[in-house]
Amino acid sequence: MSTEQDERAPAASDEAGEAPPRRGVSRRGLFGLAAGGVALAGVGAAAGYAVGDAGSSDDGVVPFRDAHQAGIATPAQDRLHFVAMDLTTTDKGAVQDLFQRWTLAAERMTSGGEVTENGAVGLNPNSPPTDTGEALGLPASSLTLTFGIGASLLTKLGLGAQRPPGLIDLPRFTGDQLDPARSGGDLCIQACADDPQVAVHAVRNLVRIGFGVTEVRWSQLGFGRTSSTSTSQDTPRNLFGFKDGTNNLKVEEPSLLDQHVWVPPGEGPPWMAGGSYLVARRIRMHIETWDRTSLDEQEKIVGRTKGEGNPLSGGGEFDPANLAATGQDGEPAIPTDAHIRLASAEETNGARILRRGYNFVDGSDGSGHLDAGLFFVAFVRDVGRQFVPMQRRLAREDKMMEYIEHSGSAVFAVPGGLSAPGAYWGDGLFA
Amino acid sequence: MSTEQDERAPAASDEAGEAPPRRGVSRRGLFGLAAGGVALAGVGAAAGYAVGDAGSSDDGVVPFRDAHQAGIATPAQDRLHFVAMDLTTTDKGAVQDLFQRWTLAAERMTSGGEVTENGAVGLNPNSPPTDTGEALGLPASSLTLTFGIGASLLTKLGLGAQRPPGLIDLPRFTGDQLDPARSGGDLCIQACADDPQVAVHAVRNLVRIGFGVTEVRWSQLGFGRTSSTSTSQDTPRNLFGFKDGTNNLKVEEPSLLDQHVWVPPGEGPPWMAGGSYLVARRIRMHIETWDRTSLDEQEKIVGRTKGEGNPLSGGGEFDPANLAATGQDGEPAIPTDAHIRLASAEETNGARILRRGYNFVDGSDGSGHLDAGLFFVAFVRDVGRQFVPMQRRLAREDKMMEYIEHSGSAVFAVPGGLSAPGAYWGDGLFA
Repeated sequence: MSTEQDERAPAASDEAGEAPPRRGVSRRGLFGLAAGGVALAGVGAAAGYAVGDAGSSDDGVVPFRDAHQAGIATPAQDRLHFVAMDLTTTDKGAVQDLFQRWTLAAERMTSGGEVTENGAVGLNPNSPPTDTGEALGLPASSLTLTFGIGASLLTKLGLGAQRPPGLIDLPRFTGDQLDPARSGGDLCIQACADDPQVAVHAVRNLVRIGFGVTEVRWSQLGFGRTSSTSTSQDTPRNLFGFKDGTNNLKVEEPSLLDQHVWVPPGEGPPWMAGGSYLVARRIRMHIETWDRTSLDEQEKIVGRTKGEGNPLSGGGEFDPANLAATGQDGEPAIPTDAHIRLASAEETNGARILRRGYNFVDGSDGSGHLDAGLFFVAFVRDVGRQFVPMQRRLAREDKMMEYIEHSGSAVFAVPGGLSAPGAYWGDGLFA
Repeated sequence: MSTEQDERAPAASDEAGEAPPRRGVSRRGLFGLAAGGVALAGVGAAAGYAVGDAGSSDDGVVPFRDAHQAGIATPAQDRLHFVAMDLTTTDKGAVQDLFQRWTLAAERMTSGGEVTENGAVGLNPNSPPTDTGEALGLPASSLTLTFGIGASLLTKLGLGAQRPPGLIDLPRFTGDQLDPARSGGDLCIQACADDPQVAVHAVRNLVRIGFGVTEVRWSQLGFGRTSSTSTSQDTPRNLFGFKDGTNNLKVEEPSLLDQHVWVPPGEGPPWMAGGSYLVARRIRMHIETWDRTSLDEQEKIVGRTKGEGNPLSGGGEFDPANLAATGQDGEPAIPTDAHIRLASAEETNGARILRRGYNFVDGSDGSGHLDAGLFFVAFVRDVGRQFVPMQRRLAREDKMMEYIEHSGSAVFAVPGGLSAPGAYWGDGLFA
């Protein structure tokens, strides 16, 4: 690591009083603590941003620094705020500096602390607070922040040589109705938490810190996870009312994650080692049409029962679907155009993906309907080998396509984890 | 009650097997139970919508039938889905019939059950399910459904004589930037719950049931309550990072609610007795500008400290603001244009309101910013005497107006509660 990088790197140990708070300490406590040493003279009677007694909470803190970024093989939290941003500059140094400041802020927020500046909680009455405040008093809430790089960022910064071969542009799929205002982006941050206020606070503060370097391109809230990513979780339901992601990869299956999710060293530039690729698709569901479809038809489209989520070939939810099984009428028990058949590993050359999507309702569509659907997020090791063939097949043959519309799309390269002290988001790009 | 009304009224006792589920029974349990008696012949191997063992849960059920509608003097739940709808018919009978079906569905959903049709859980494989399914397995989650009538509904149905004098059209306030697509509506349903999936499920099913009679005009999700409405709740924070609604009316103050929230018998048509008026304002916050404002300025605009929420005149959060207090410089400790001064009962002839708003983030605004703010909901006894003078004053003088923009607005008359068995939403309109 060069000297310059050492100077830039916001290693926790370099910042007095800046170590992430202990597990279980709420933002309220931390803020009160930090504020103790800050003079508040001249701010009127009871003014000042400090808050009272240190609270404590058992709510989870997901470690920020690890071999992989958090928010991928983390049991899916309940809420999402996803933001795609564009650079407003081509100044590589400014971007590098921002990534460092973002990393410091992200590490503090995921630990349950507030955002600081130059190592201090900002309580200067004559300056904007360094933290916007709406998460004061709330615990860490299992917040994870996951950072991704779009191909357009590399182009803008003249870093085309750093582009991983796996960071491909998606082809146009049959039926795509993509809105450019909901697609693409130079970079993304995925905030997941068990409390939406905590996820929104994190994105909002990172957006704020990025002022002058980045701006929001699009942003998506999700209110209910649609996949379990851990054997400890129930399978949730999507807005079609069906259990979703039963056969998802699980965090308890590290060898499958190595095979299908993580990019190994040498498969792309060094900064992608231990990383992954994030595919986001905003899938509008025509729920009004779906709701007028018979139960039998709904189950045949999905390939599972609506109640228990059992494959139509028999057995329980977690029993493997028998694609060869036939019903009494001699027809396949799981129809040839059923979603679970077309998305199955058997039908896609063994490809599996880690789904980590969320339900959304974004108001109404102006035509008398709710604007609702699934914000699909998946992590894969190879977009072209895993997602593209699966989606191509689904787009062409999946009966469910009659009820959905892909209205947004993006692919980001998610760098590996920040296990080294002082490492920061995207630092390998500038190596 | 006329014979015709008796036939229409969906009294729980009229429907075999239709009584709302016991407190604590989850939808999963109820559904499995109901499904037990339904034949599922001919639906292939393991098909059918029935689910397994009856679960149990201690999550709250808020009683649906009471002297007042639930969702007003109910301790504010964490999540909101609010929908405004327009009639697509002027057929009074069709509307009356819909209100009955809605009432039955609302009573079941708030009790933790699924939507039924003609008293049965719909498991006919050849028909659409009577419940869309995405809340199967989830408990009641303190769901409340609150129903309101817009003036335009009365006009459309020729019921102008039923218009309460209190159901006024709001004047245009200084600075209003109202979007017609986010304003008004023939009727509204406010769904509040501790789980957003439960609130969304409720609205979605009511919208579905309304097909052919109503359509969605606008819809708003809120992710974090911005007011406490009970002394048992912490004061939450809005997206300016400040505690909001400290001096809100509380459910533990029934005499104040009688004075400021509930419409007494005789103050309007009979169907409004025990009712209230709901004022909704979508308030976009220019958080980027706010975030660049100094802490001192932010606190002066609000009139409270950001950390603890103490009035700038001194004392703790719940101590009364001393509007006469001056600082060492001789200036008012709470500035003359501070929000809490202008909204105070002292400055508004004693008017108080029951705030029940939520934070929102609706993606981005297309100009590089988050589309974020406060979905303000208030319940008042007299819109013209309470809300209008307060908002007129705030719109003209509140320094905070520089940072916000009212982009949506609506007023609804909220009928009294359904304490009588067989009573249904809005039945008094047709009496």
